[in-house]
Amino acid sequence: MTDRTGAAASTDQEDVMTIRAVVWGENIHERTNEVVAGIYPEGMHATIANALKLDPEISVSWATLEQPEHGLPVDRLAQTDVLVWWGHKDHGAVADEVVERVARRVWEGMGLIVLHSGHFSKIFKTLMGTPCTLKWREAGERERLWVTSPNHPIAAGIGEYFELENEEMYGEQFAVPEPLETVFISWFQGGEVFRSGLTYRRGAGNIFYFRPGHETYPTYHDANVQKVLRNAVKWAHNPQRAHPAILDAPNVPVEKALEPIVERGGKLHAEGEPGYR
Amino acid sequence: MTDRTGAAASTDQEDVMTIRAVVWGENIHERTNEVVAGIYPEGMHATIANALKLDPEISVSWATLEQPEHGLPVDRLAQTDVLVWWGHKDHGAVADEVVERVARRVWEGMGLIVLHSGHFSKIFKTLMGTPCTLKWREAGERERLWVTSPNHPIAAGIGEYFELENEEMYGEQFAVPEPLETVFISWFQGGEVFRSGLTYRRGAGNIFYFRPGHETYPTYHDANVQKVLRNAVKWAHNPQRAHPAILDAPNVPVEKALEPIVERGGKLHAEGEPGYR
Amino acid sequence: MTDRTGAAASTDQEDVMTIRAVVWGENIHERTNEVVAGIYPEGMHATIANALKLDPEISVSWATLEQPEHGLPVDRLAQTDVLVWWGHKDHGAVADEVVERVARRVWEGMGLIVLHSGHFSKIFKTLMGTPCTLKWREAGERERLWVTSPNHPIAAGIGEYFELENEEMYGEQFAVPEPLETVFISWFQGGEVFRSGLTYRRGAGNIFYFRPGHETYPTYHDANVQKVLRNAVKWAHNPQRAHPAILDAPNVPVEKALEPIVERGGKLHAEGEPGYR
Amino acid sequence: MTDRTGAAASTDQEDVMTIRAVVWGENIHERTNEVVAGIYPEGMHATIANALKLDPEISVSWATLEQPEHGLPVDRLAQTDVLVWWGHKDHGAVADEVVERVARRVWEGMGLIVLHSGHFSKIFKTLMGTPCTLKWREAGERERLWVTSPNHPIAAGIGEYFELENEEMYGEQFAVPEPLETVFISWFQGGEVFRSGLTYRRGAGNIFYFRPGHETYPTYHDANVQKVLRNAVKWAHNPQRAHPAILDAPNVPVEKALEPIVERGGKLHAEGEPGYR
Repeated sequence: MTDRTGAAASTDQEDVMTIRAVVWGENIHERTNEVVAGIYPEGMHATIANALKLDPEISVSWATLEQPEHGLPVDRLAQTDVLVWWGHKDHGAVADEVVERVARRVWEGMGLIVLHSGHFSKIFKTLMGTPCTLKWREAGERERLWVTSPNHPIAAGIGEYFELENEEMYGEQFAVPEPLETVFISWFQGGEVFRSGLTYRRGAGNIFYFRPGHETYPTYHDANVQKVLRNAVKWAHNPQRAHPAILDAPNVPVEKALEPIVERGGKLHAEGEPGYR
Repeated sequence: MTDRTGAAASTDQEDVMTIRAVVWGENIHERTNEVVAGIYPEGMHATIANALKLDPEISVSWATLEQPEHGLPVDRLAQTDVLVWWGHKDHGAVADEVVERVARRVWEGMGLIVLHSGHFSKIFKTLMGTPCTLKWREAGERERLWVTSPNHPIAAGIGEYFELENEEMYGEQFAVPEPLETVFISWFQGGEVFRSGLTYRRGAGNIFYFRPGHETYPTYHDANVQKVLRNAVKWAHNPQRAHPAILDAPNVPVEKALEPIVERGGKLHAEGEPGYR
Repeated sequence: MTDRTGAAASTDQEDVMTIRAVVWGENIHERTNEVVAGIYPEGMHATIANALKLDPEISVSWATLEQPEHGLPVDRLAQTDVLVWWGHKDHGAVADEVVERVARRVWEGMGLIVLHSGHFSKIFKTLMGTPCTLKWREAGERERLWVTSPNHPIAAGIGEYFELENEEMYGEQFAVPEPLETVFISWFQGGEVFRSGLTYRRGAGNIFYFRPGHETYPTYHDANVQKVLRNAVKWAHNPQRAHPAILDAPNVPVEKALEPIVERGGKLHAEGEPGYR
Repeated sequence: MTDRTGAAASTDQEDVMTIRAVVWGENIHERTNEVVAGIYPEGMHATIANALKLDPEISVSWATLEQPEHGLPVDRLAQTDVLVWWGHKDHGAVADEVVERVARRVWEGMGLIVLHSGHFSKIFKTLMGTPCTLKWREAGERERLWVTSPNHPIAAGIGEYFELENEEMYGEQFAVPEPLETVFISWFQGGEVFRSGLTYRRGAGNIFYFRPGHETYPTYHDANVQKVLRNAVKWAHNPQRAHPAILDAPNVPVEKALEPIVERGGKLHAEGEPGYR
């Protein structure tokens, strides 16, 4: 397992108190595109995972598309506190069953960090309920990310802004729901802007979308980007136990009502019958 | 067509200025359950449609589950400004293709009013990105809806609260995203509370969830409920043209950048190649 | 009155159905600075008012700082549906009593459009509860406003973006609360971004902050800016009657409780005594 | 100082890692009303402080109205991470200067927990920008607080709901801005509902309003209430350094623009001149 998930490398630092993060990488362009392979010889997921490991509170492993169940079997997800998602080339190859599984874990309380081209991943579109469309241009232009919520935990240690000299442009309108909070907005050299750091809650799970990360540039080697990723994992982590009850729609029988009531009027459901779904 | 969609009854009042509303009803319990048939002999959709017709700015027709394409073919949806949705017994029978079609129209700007048990409809869960679960009890108890956003257009003409003497209880936690605004919160006789009027925007479309409407009680005959429905249709209506571009993710070529830039760094995409989805 | 408020010019088009807008202008730089006087010889308030008048649904007059009670006596505000506010040079000269009066009207349901340097007006700071600080640079640089909420009524008729060739830069972090919705984000030539169109509700009143409008540039002569202003007035307008009850904190006597209860435990207040404020 | 602030009792547990909480109590009814004195013989602030001390991560002291500067001099506030505020009888006695001081610290990043009748405190109204009105009834009725955001850190360890057998009723409409998140909604025996747990951010500061706490009932002795208070202090705490720059509105000179620009057009401000406030 060691060579495929990187789990062994981090097992020794795992204990009850650490945040168990899994970095999910599509791992296609790293193996098929020379430019990408040159920047991320071990895979983007490995670079991201190594960045997270710099924080002693985070224990980290990775998973990739080509693994059985994309490296996200039920029991592993059940042991995951925060999932970081990077995909681009083949969103459609992710099995619907795994997408539903991840969504359920988010609703139960697992944190989710969606990166860059992950805006079009099935899991992000499922959780947003919108097309998640945007404008784009692959020209290696300058991006400057401005902090719009100073002292937000995700922006800790970042100044007023930071720059990436070469990035893909993403431009508004970004078709996502209004976020809980906007943490970063990007300025692009070619004239566009983009809401680059957005927080959401879906069920009991915290979600952060973070824009940078085109695979032909060394974005995940950038110190500020790495700091934001560590901050985001810690922000998204919910130390409480999973809340699977969020999937239930329980009937509260009349005789168990918290205030005494008498049943009146017509009924559809016989005693103890479940609701329609 | 008249007997199946009710369209003829309203055609004469349609003109460019009216809001074209379609009331979608599942139309099952009205035909299979005596209690429901007694309260809504023409179907719940007809009662709701008649309530909307009282406003001269709204022209209304209906659609039901058993019709071809559930009464929502592409061209009809294209002519619909606001869709009102009531379903309960058989959410699963709604074809995924139609659900996607409705979602696209919402993203393009069509308003959507989701009623009561529609919280578990495919379309609502798709647009929310959450399980939309809740507690429930069918005991005909008293519900009192308090206005939490006075002067909100949806609460126009409603006082501080209104009551429904017999309703099904829905209780928190209602697993939906934090709304744009909370317009109503319900008090239930048996001891629960529920966020009963919630607004959202998804893409260019306005969405309102409104809780009351269990089919074994005469809720849609209630004057306050009818007023809220008319208000909600007018609030959700967007007089601007549809915005189908929300489904596009256009490339902005370097030479068409609004500010002059020079292409730099590695590239994945050849000239004019579409992005991955 | 005609020469001071412009009311006469618009009286003839006023009727029950029009939105009664008042444009409040500080009217200092127009009289003391040659550049500004050259661009706005009748005052910025007159230019803005004339732009609003192009919409037959809006009837408009103006008020200025130097008038008695700054042109905003109680009875005039009571007849105002939407107030548009531009100030810059002397925010401190606005009497606290008038600020409180305007705030009360907003809470009761009057719409408020705050323009540009009005971010530091007493009324805006009062309603936001934050410092409303930002970065700035007066260099006549290019600003490009991107629409982040397509089909929002305030962006009706605006395309994906519009440009102002010469504007003052305002840069993040803009110290305001997270808005209901972000409608515009600006790109600046010098490298900054700014959330330029933000919606809020305070009490029953709708508020829109709109960034452009430095007095040394002809911003309020721009067709797109004028369109946004008209859209914003119509969006902010609440056709319902004023809701003065929002200022009350009524006691609900035990014997008038909606559900029968029996008084228990200790009490601070004697029968009928008002609460502490 | 020990007898007046309780600081000595907690000094020994203070270290760099603890959250420095200050509980501010009005301390009037505890000394003038027999019922209140009987329930809180040491003052409500002491009971609340003792509840917070049960968490080893929190170090706590208190301050009261009658102390010089209400116990909140500049240097003490500068050393405060989270301020808990309870007031009722004499909100007007709090000096405006101290209110402004507290607001500045919130904007800089200090957390603020506002309790019960503190809804009418100057500091809460200042930060909300609304009247903060509500309905009320002092009848010792049953309150049931439902969790609307499961797994929210503030609701950690609380089940689906908890009850207070005797509380004052607060009813909607609660005239506050739409919150970031609604964590609790209360059901009252007499028929009302209330949004009892609301989160906000103002500048860099996290704010939580928590409804329960009428002084004639033993609410702050309740285990669930105490747990929420500890959770709220930890949630509101921002471990980052204070962000005083939030009060600045810096000019960015043309020659220091991040992207090279050339100054154009008219100017109001001479080189280096500050902006108007």
